[in-house]
Amino acid sequence: MDSRYDIAIVGSGPAGLSAAINAKIRNKNIILFGNAELSEKLVKAAQIKNYLGLPDITGLQLKDKFEKHIKSMNINIILERINEIYAMGEYFGLMVNKKMYEAKTIVLATGIEYTKPLRGEEKFLGRGVGYCATCDAPLYKGKIVTIIGYNKEAEKEANYVNELVKKVYYVPMYRDKLKLDGDIEVVRGKELEIYGKEKVEKVLLKDREIITDGVFVLKDSISPAQLVPGIAMQDNHVKIDVNMNTNIPGCFAAGDCAGKPYQYMKAVGQGQIAALNAVSYLDNLSDS
Amino acid sequence: MDSRYDIAIVGSGPAGLSAAINAKIRNKNIILFGNAELSEKLVKAAQIKNYLGLPDITGLQLKDKFEKHIKSMNINIILERINEIYAMGEYFGLMVNKKMYEAKTIVLATGIEYTKPLRGEEKFLGRGVGYCATCDAPLYKGKIVTIIGYNKEAEKEANYVNELVKKVYYVPMYRDKLKLDGDIEVVRGKELEIYGKEKVEKVLLKDREIITDGVFVLKDSISPAQLVPGIAMQDNHVKIDVNMNTNIPGCFAAGDCAGKPYQYMKAVGQGQIAALNAVSYLDNLSDS
Repeated sequence: MDSRYDIAIVGSGPAGLSAAINAKIRNKNIILFGNAELSEKLVKAAQIKNYLGLPDITGLQLKDKFEKHIKSMNINIILERINEIYAMGEYFGLMVNKKMYEAKTIVLATGIEYTKPLRGEEKFLGRGVGYCATCDAPLYKGKIVTIIGYNKEAEKEANYVNELVKKVYYVPMYRDKLKLDGDIEVVRGKELEIYGKEKVEKVLLKDREIITDGVFVLKDSISPAQLVPGIAMQDNHVKIDVNMNTNIPGCFAAGDCAGKPYQYMKAVGQGQIAALNAVSYLDNLSDS
Repeated sequence: MDSRYDIAIVGSGPAGLSAAINAKIRNKNIILFGNAELSEKLVKAAQIKNYLGLPDITGLQLKDKFEKHIKSMNINIILERINEIYAMGEYFGLMVNKKMYEAKTIVLATGIEYTKPLRGEEKFLGRGVGYCATCDAPLYKGKIVTIIGYNKEAEKEANYVNELVKKVYYVPMYRDKLKLDGDIEVVRGKELEIYGKEKVEKVLLKDREIITDGVFVLKDSISPAQLVPGIAMQDNHVKIDVNMNTNIPGCFAAGDCAGKPYQYMKAVGQGQIAALNAVSYLDNLSDS
């Protein structure tokens, strides 16, 4: 198999999964990045009444159905968090910290970012701030790491990081009970700020500060503007046309990241359109 | 209940049904026009692999699921064929021959017209040519009617018309076995033309002609350009933006009639977008 994929799909919510099954049916060599729960938003949905054909289904039940569907087609989800995507002309480079994946086309299905960046988060990105703890942890061997977690999945990453580094602080941004290794220090607090000069030095809280070498901010998604330098936005969403084209040739977007309404069927439909237009784009590439 | 509907949805395929359930959830007063089989295209689909959440389903099975979904929400399909939709400014008039329905907004989900109009069909529309036999049949009491049927459903209409008029000729445009009342005369033939001077006088075939007072052309859908005078088209589809707006305020389009790819999930997603934007449009109307 070629190490350069035909289509890289970023996001495992309804839009990303729909793009994946459609691209796979068209026999394309795809890679799908996402998380094990598929979509935090979906899993939390109490009752969905407007997924045509499946009346009165819970988010969890629908997630199970999605999972069965992709498994039946041998589609796997790569549990890595893409930090940045570069348009290289003939292909795209998808960075997972130091590792790079290559793909000829991209379908962005990252969902919508409900959380505002912390103070200092964007400033120190790549200079001590990262979004993938499991990928970057080896860089912090013998050092102090702070993990700012927005969801329960972040706890698993924290436990993993804890095996590799000297000390882990965990700052939960949610209220659930935590399942963390005993020697991880939990810090609860408000008014978070990531602080430093050249690089990260501290995490400041209202009534405390943590000296730290690195900070991982683990949230459901990062904003497309941050993910894909140069992508055109409109009202905080990726700007698309009716064919799900973005302003970057070969880069498509679908689902919540591509605009309202934030709805499952809309996402699934757009994922399909994005994938099929990516297929057409690939066909044109190979013709020329 | 107000006699003017909030949203009239034209078409009972995946796009129309999705629009209907979403509009109903938003508590709008809707009317859905379509046919008893929901969608000829869907019912004929052998196997569908890309309806996310329902892997490996037949068109017939999916149709059953759609049917259960709309029944569970008390959505009924009005089995009438809209001939023309007029934008009246504050509302739309939907004509079923002489009868008019009124709605504040429209969602067009008519599917795609694969059949070219017959020679003379457009010329004599409203002057002996009609698209709804059951609606117009009373006008032909004691007269001769020719029904040109593109699908089996047309047979039921022919049998109904046969009870009211003097004589029915049936010209099937398909190959199935027919279930017609004994006194209906079946005429098979090629090179059809609808002929007349001021109004319809004859149907001409390669080796025969039928003297007739009226002709009903019963096909799956009529073209949006014919249905909605003044609607902007692009490459034979209704021109839409990402919110499913057409060029006519309050008139939305979704599914195959709004462009390629001709796919179920795309249609369902667009139906949802159309309905939710129609809801926003209605909310703005009532604010002003």
